[in-house]
Amino acid sequence: MNTTFMHRAIELARQGMEKNEGGPFGCVIVKDGTVIAEGNNRVTSDNDPTAHAEIVAIRRACENLGEFQLTGCEIYTSCEPCPMCLGAIYWARPNRVFYAGTRIDAAEAGFDDDFIYTELNIDPKLRSIQMIPMERELAKEVFQSWTEKKDKIDY
Amino acid sequence: MNTTFMHRAIELARQGMEKNEGGPFGCVIVKDGTVIAEGNNRVTSDNDPTAHAEIVAIRRACENLGEFQLTGCEIYTSCEPCPMCLGAIYWARPNRVFYAGTRIDAAEAGFDDDFIYTELNIDPKLRSIQMIPMERELAKEVFQSWTEKKDKIDY
Repeated sequence: MNTTFMHRAIELARQGMEKNEGGPFGCVIVKDGTVIAEGNNRVTSDNDPTAHAEIVAIRRACENLGEFQLTGCEIYTSCEPCPMCLGAIYWARPNRVFYAGTRIDAAEAGFDDDFIYTELNIDPKLRSIQMIPMERELAKEVFQSWTEKKDKIDY
Repeated sequence: MNTTFMHRAIELARQGMEKNEGGPFGCVIVKDGTVIAEGNNRVTSDNDPTAHAEIVAIRRACENLGEFQLTGCEIYTSCEPCPMCLGAIYWARPNRVFYAGTRIDAAEAGFDDDFIYTELNIDPKLRSIQMIPMERELAKEVFQSWTEKKDKIDY
């Protein structure tokens, strides 16, 4: 736990907000004691709803490393990751995550993080964005081909 | 519900897999009966753990629309969205989502989707990727500035 890295993440949150790049969220990714990537929320300036601070920083860190995993890295983020960013963290597989604000703090500032955590556990058909299954058997055929594929790269 | 769009999403899944761009996942985004963006998983070829089919398609659709929301759109995805993609969908706010394979089918093919759904509901400190709170009060100051900000763009 390193307060310097967290203070930098929070500074990025403030700077991004003040430059009207997006919401007040910042993130720093560290490997072997060195910052390898930074990010701040850029949703409204990039017209990209996925451009949360953690996603931006994870993409940059992987680009810098030339890898699709963050093995051995630590993530410092100014707020508890939303479900999208939490998922991205699991796919990137860093060692640990440090966070400052919570999903409750984010909700009080008008963000949907806590709402989305709730929606995740609701039956897909009953969610506020309805999710409807169809054509499952066709999709399973592709998964079967993946299982049998000899030259696949697992991730 | 339109089987043509879902068949295209599943075709993209197969093509991406066969070209070794990433896992067997495809996605199509439709507005007013027309495909406005397509995507397939590109994690291993782009060195980007966030490059799932839905994320790729959402980013392209928003770029094509010049907006950070997918109001009025429908998403057809070859597999039930993982938590990262489900979060991205909530931030993008399409009208509905159709999916073919399930998180269980993905797990049987070796993917972590179901595992990550389970991890989301575990206390952050007890997760397999440990998540540790620190410096919350500093982060709350930035949220307070956001709440008071006059020229902010909500999302």
